[in-house]
Amino acid sequence: MLSLPSTPPPKSKILVLGAGNFGSCLADHLGNSDHEVFMWSREARFVEYFNKHHRNPDYLKDHEFSTNIRVVGPEIPSRAMMKQMDVLLFAIPTQGVRETLIKLQHSFDRANLPLMIFVNKGIETGTHALTLEIIADTCGSEIARAATFISGPSFATEIVRRQPTSVSVASLTESQARKASEIFHQPWFRCYTGSDPIGLELAGALKNVYAIATGLADGLGFENNTRAGLITRGLAEMTRIGTAYGASPLTFLGLAGVGDLFLTCSSPTSRNYTVGYRLGKGEPLEDIIKTLGSVAEGVTTVKGLKKIIDEMQVSAPLANGIYALLYEGKDLHEGIQELMCRPPSRELDLPEKAGEPAKRLMQKLGLDT
Amino acid sequence: MLSLPSTPPPKSKILVLGAGNFGSCLADHLGNSDHEVFMWSREARFVEYFNKHHRNPDYLKDHEFSTNIRVVGPEIPSRAMMKQMDVLLFAIPTQGVRETLIKLQHSFDRANLPLMIFVNKGIETGTHALTLEIIADTCGSEIARAATFISGPSFATEIVRRQPTSVSVASLTESQARKASEIFHQPWFRCYTGSDPIGLELAGALKNVYAIATGLADGLGFENNTRAGLITRGLAEMTRIGTAYGASPLTFLGLAGVGDLFLTCSSPTSRNYTVGYRLGKGEPLEDIIKTLGSVAEGVTTVKGLKKIIDEMQVSAPLANGIYALLYEGKDLHEGIQELMCRPPSRELDLPEKAGEPAKRLMQKLGLDT
Repeated sequence: MLSLPSTPPPKSKILVLGAGNFGSCLADHLGNSDHEVFMWSREARFVEYFNKHHRNPDYLKDHEFSTNIRVVGPEIPSRAMMKQMDVLLFAIPTQGVRETLIKLQHSFDRANLPLMIFVNKGIETGTHALTLEIIADTCGSEIARAATFISGPSFATEIVRRQPTSVSVASLTESQARKASEIFHQPWFRCYTGSDPIGLELAGALKNVYAIATGLADGLGFENNTRAGLITRGLAEMTRIGTAYGASPLTFLGLAGVGDLFLTCSSPTSRNYTVGYRLGKGEPLEDIIKTLGSVAEGVTTVKGLKKIIDEMQVSAPLANGIYALLYEGKDLHEGIQELMCRPPSRELDLPEKAGEPAKRLMQKLGLDT
Repeated sequence: MLSLPSTPPPKSKILVLGAGNFGSCLADHLGNSDHEVFMWSREARFVEYFNKHHRNPDYLKDHEFSTNIRVVGPEIPSRAMMKQMDVLLFAIPTQGVRETLIKLQHSFDRANLPLMIFVNKGIETGTHALTLEIIADTCGSEIARAATFISGPSFATEIVRRQPTSVSVASLTESQARKASEIFHQPWFRCYTGSDPIGLELAGALKNVYAIATGLADGLGFENNTRAGLITRGLAEMTRIGTAYGASPLTFLGLAGVGDLFLTCSSPTSRNYTVGYRLGKGEPLEDIIKTLGSVAEGVTTVKGLKKIIDEMQVSAPLANGIYALLYEGKDLHEGIQELMCRPPSRELDLPEKAGEPAKRLMQKLGLDT
């Protein structure tokens, strides 16, 4: 929609790993910003189709992609190719990050590391690890300390139409976040930097659970006051959990927190919101999952979250309620009655003892404080 | 809608000052919670009509009000009546608070002060004072220190239908906030207490300015990413201004901040949002104000806000942009281009030197720290 003049950023060679909805929209954005973009797909038919038509056969099908993108694959990118890259942009699902990094990390030129950017959201099933920890486990602490994360309210379909979009860009090494921001920043794609990747990751994962709760309330017929109150109390709960984990509470005020929570809770196209909405209308979870095609992230995340909440002993009535509804056969109306009958409390009761999980992660990263 | 069992709170005698939309809905809520409620109106026809029909002739016309409410007036409540009250609930517009308090304060029984609760929002025109300061000016510091403020996402029409609603309740004397919360709290009207009335007041006033900005973007045809990004950047700006003023940044994460911002920006019935939306569609401000009947609060607030921003030298591109558009003849599209072309920045850049206005107010309240 918009096409404003801007100073062209210095050109970078960027390899986007993953050719899904979000990966390919970011490749498009970077290609349009005059970077030289490579996108890796592990499907031979995709490689051929995209390079011939400049279209993604699976996502954003109506969009003609930037001609500055060349798709590579299906073999994993070679050491020689990786060596030429200034930026590696990981746009693969969280559950595939560990495996991909294990394969790729032998090819890193450790004397001259590229900028590594991650845009996946969610907690790893089984380990409950954040991506920062997966990176440390597979590539070592030096790479994890420099890794950069991008998150925020950003539907891919709107990005390719240059609808003004704003995102958070965070790294423990804030200079890396600034570099990433210079590469991505355009008038229609605004970057805001920070130094709390743990908060950014937790916000991105947790918001899906609260989107289910908001969908539920809407499905049950509650109105505007309830909706705004529930989103805000969900945010307070996310902030409390994040702070107990060791994140900064203020990260939840940002684009990866409030911003993405608003977007997810306001959009009937959000899978998590839809799960909640249909549960609120009385459909059983199995039926919803069957017709949705795959499980919405929040449905999985709440399992890992429940373990984290119990381990940290932090108060999280909404997440506990969603868990009980999905996995313990709790009656919906009884659950709501219990939530509503809780006594008055302080608004933002942050835990006094906080930060154990983040401390353990910082130790792993060689950043004991 | 909901009617859950609850332990009845101890009965209080409550005088609601103001019989408008919000005042009468709160009177109804308190009456239904078995308190003995008096509501003051300065219109003789209102007093007679309400006491006869248990209906408000001007607002919430379809609603049959609690029979526990008795309207008094049109004379200002007598000293003898005031002496019997446990609670005074002020539900009058900010611009009328100073005058009302000047008239009433002679009748306070200072040896046995009632709980004083304020639900108005906004900054006083001319002085740019918060209500906390108006109270200190007119009633003295002791009463101001104990004053309690309620704010949050709460449409009156939904409260009278018992749609679950959540609000922030804040006072410098937190025990007073807890008392207020015990009086108001019901399963369908949930109270969350805090100790930052300055942040709560600022959030309530400032959100109207950012609702204009959100309406503008919607009127111009921007989509979901832009909307969520703008609300979040508006919140970051509110938080920065509030922190510079001396409020806690975390207050803006709460119901009076995010919650009310979200409600105001999501509702086509919000006057401030509507002003922005119609400006975005190209209507001149004068025409909009003419058909709206009266000025939306944000249109007035941004004037006082501009003075506060300039005095504190805090970065506030959105509020400055709205001010320039409304009062300096700035071209809308040029303004948007300038906003979008700003360079990347840190996400939540809180001012280092902060709190001068709040410090001055605390001195006035005898709370120099």
